[in-house]
Amino acid sequence: MNLNKPLPSEPVIAIVGATGVVGSEMLSILEERNVPCRSVKLLASKDSAGEMYSFNGGECEVEELTAESFQGVDIALFATSGALSAEFVPIAVESGAIVIDNSSHYRMQEGVPLLVPEVNRVALTKNDPIIANPNCSTAQLVPVLDIIHKNAGLKRVVVSTYQAVSGAGKAALDELWEQTRAVFTQKETESEAFAHPIAFNCIPQIDTLLEDGYTKEEMKVVDESRKILGLPDLKITCTAVRVPVFHCHAESVNVETEKPLSEQELTTLLENAPGIEVYANHNEFPMQIDCASKDPIFVGRIRKDSSVENGLNIWIVADNLRKGAALNAVQILELLLEKEH
Amino acid sequence: MNLNKPLPSEPVIAIVGATGVVGSEMLSILEERNVPCRSVKLLASKDSAGEMYSFNGGECEVEELTAESFQGVDIALFATSGALSAEFVPIAVESGAIVIDNSSHYRMQEGVPLLVPEVNRVALTKNDPIIANPNCSTAQLVPVLDIIHKNAGLKRVVVSTYQAVSGAGKAALDELWEQTRAVFTQKETESEAFAHPIAFNCIPQIDTLLEDGYTKEEMKVVDESRKILGLPDLKITCTAVRVPVFHCHAESVNVETEKPLSEQELTTLLENAPGIEVYANHNEFPMQIDCASKDPIFVGRIRKDSSVENGLNIWIVADNLRKGAALNAVQILELLLEKEH
Repeated sequence: MNLNKPLPSEPVIAIVGATGVVGSEMLSILEERNVPCRSVKLLASKDSAGEMYSFNGGECEVEELTAESFQGVDIALFATSGALSAEFVPIAVESGAIVIDNSSHYRMQEGVPLLVPEVNRVALTKNDPIIANPNCSTAQLVPVLDIIHKNAGLKRVVVSTYQAVSGAGKAALDELWEQTRAVFTQKETESEAFAHPIAFNCIPQIDTLLEDGYTKEEMKVVDESRKILGLPDLKITCTAVRVPVFHCHAESVNVETEKPLSEQELTTLLENAPGIEVYANHNEFPMQIDCASKDPIFVGRIRKDSSVENGLNIWIVADNLRKGAALNAVQILELLLEKEH
Repeated sequence: MNLNKPLPSEPVIAIVGATGVVGSEMLSILEERNVPCRSVKLLASKDSAGEMYSFNGGECEVEELTAESFQGVDIALFATSGALSAEFVPIAVESGAIVIDNSSHYRMQEGVPLLVPEVNRVALTKNDPIIANPNCSTAQLVPVLDIIHKNAGLKRVVVSTYQAVSGAGKAALDELWEQTRAVFTQKETESEAFAHPIAFNCIPQIDTLLEDGYTKEEMKVVDESRKILGLPDLKITCTAVRVPVFHCHAESVNVETEKPLSEQELTTLLENAPGIEVYANHNEFPMQIDCASKDPIFVGRIRKDSSVENGLNIWIVADNLRKGAALNAVQILELLLEKEH
């Protein structure tokens, strides 16, 4: 266990699931942000072993993920399924690595911090061996909700999402592409990544359905928002919908606050918030096609909602692979290094 | 004026804007539903004059719309812009026709009934020369809201829409098609029907923006729902979003009621409602790709919303050219004939 081991100022960083859409984005972001590291170790399934990725002017070869992969690793970024994380995160921790896990496996586990650095960096203690990275649709929502809560008190939140296919991985990106092309070439295609056709269609189901009719994705937004914001009783509900868009999630968010908060006040608060770009002019607004490969959370269409005493409607867009996943994970890594040194 | 003129049992019906997406759907629906009519007169701009449409086994030639077009017409279905309706509806009425107008021009005018037959047929009096057909996103919403209100009392409604491009007409259908194809052929295309690219993108603006940041489309949902439901103070708010889908609008609707209404109770109520098909099983739900060219309003994903005392989340899908426009207009026409005879 790594509880007492100091983190070197230039750690050895492993990316597990390095060839996936989130893993490869993690590698890009480590380079872009000049994160100090002695070396990067790319881990993936046997099929991907031997693939080469460029990093910081050199080349990095993908290695097969095994129980021995974590020897000498200081920090491991996991961009894997819940099942793979459940299997390999304990092995990484046992080997002395601190793990930042992007799967849902550890997120709601008591004692595991679920971090969005802009919101709850205080939840990180010096000895956390595992830190969970939130779900994409949660990560872009909570920084905005946090600002609203701190300034006017959150009373209730109603979210409807417009989620890109990249959230379902490479196969889903390919499926939107191939199914759409098949419409033009009048060919038959199968739905594999999704249970239903996604070309020119919206699918109101993301992740599996639960007993009460909600999907896991919807409950991630509810449960993870509560944990990150430190508001276990927050009144929040969500409808999560997949739309035929490659990158970036959009969210239509209706917020009711305890105290009045005008459009102008919220706009000013968001303008001064790190990691957020706000469209102050009603004539402009964020759209998914413009936000891909960008870091900020984009907020627009802020309107007073007169159907309730203190109401606001808000439109939030972010790249689900960046702030929704890889960027947030790297921000957590930076926070670890900052806390240590 | 037609105030005292009896309507013949087999009226002469004009379709104004007959070559547009709504107008041509009106013609199909008149035939499908065997609406009694002596003849159909297809009116459009000069450019379309001479085009032939098949109807009831014969052929029908499009004529140029002029001030003289309405001689002998008993009922005129207008599928035109607000500006064209403003110009030609009074002429049609003056010529003795009853007008069912699909534009927004007359909808909120006092004294003009705004009709969804399942909801407010009582608003129709025998002497109405002009009857307004609601906006597409309103028409599919109010029958569901009406049932909820009658059984549990509507307290507040929050709507987020996922609207198809066909709501913006033929040019918009072409634009989604061409822009999407251009992504595959790596060609540059222009945005004309929409102010922004629609291929693989969601645009959170439908119709023009108003001073307070809402769009006209959003306020149509608010104002028209209040008028049709007869609830001038109904607390309702809307965010309207265009999605890259050809046909059918979907709506994520959060409803708060005065009295408790369980998922099962609402499901049963909707199962017994005319014009509505409900998905009672959580594992199935309506999707736009399945609802095109179909008449019903499809409702699914009914879930208890625990963020408020009596809350429900609902997913509503309908073909915006059918129940959202042409079908509702023809239903009004049938109601006129039924009231008369």
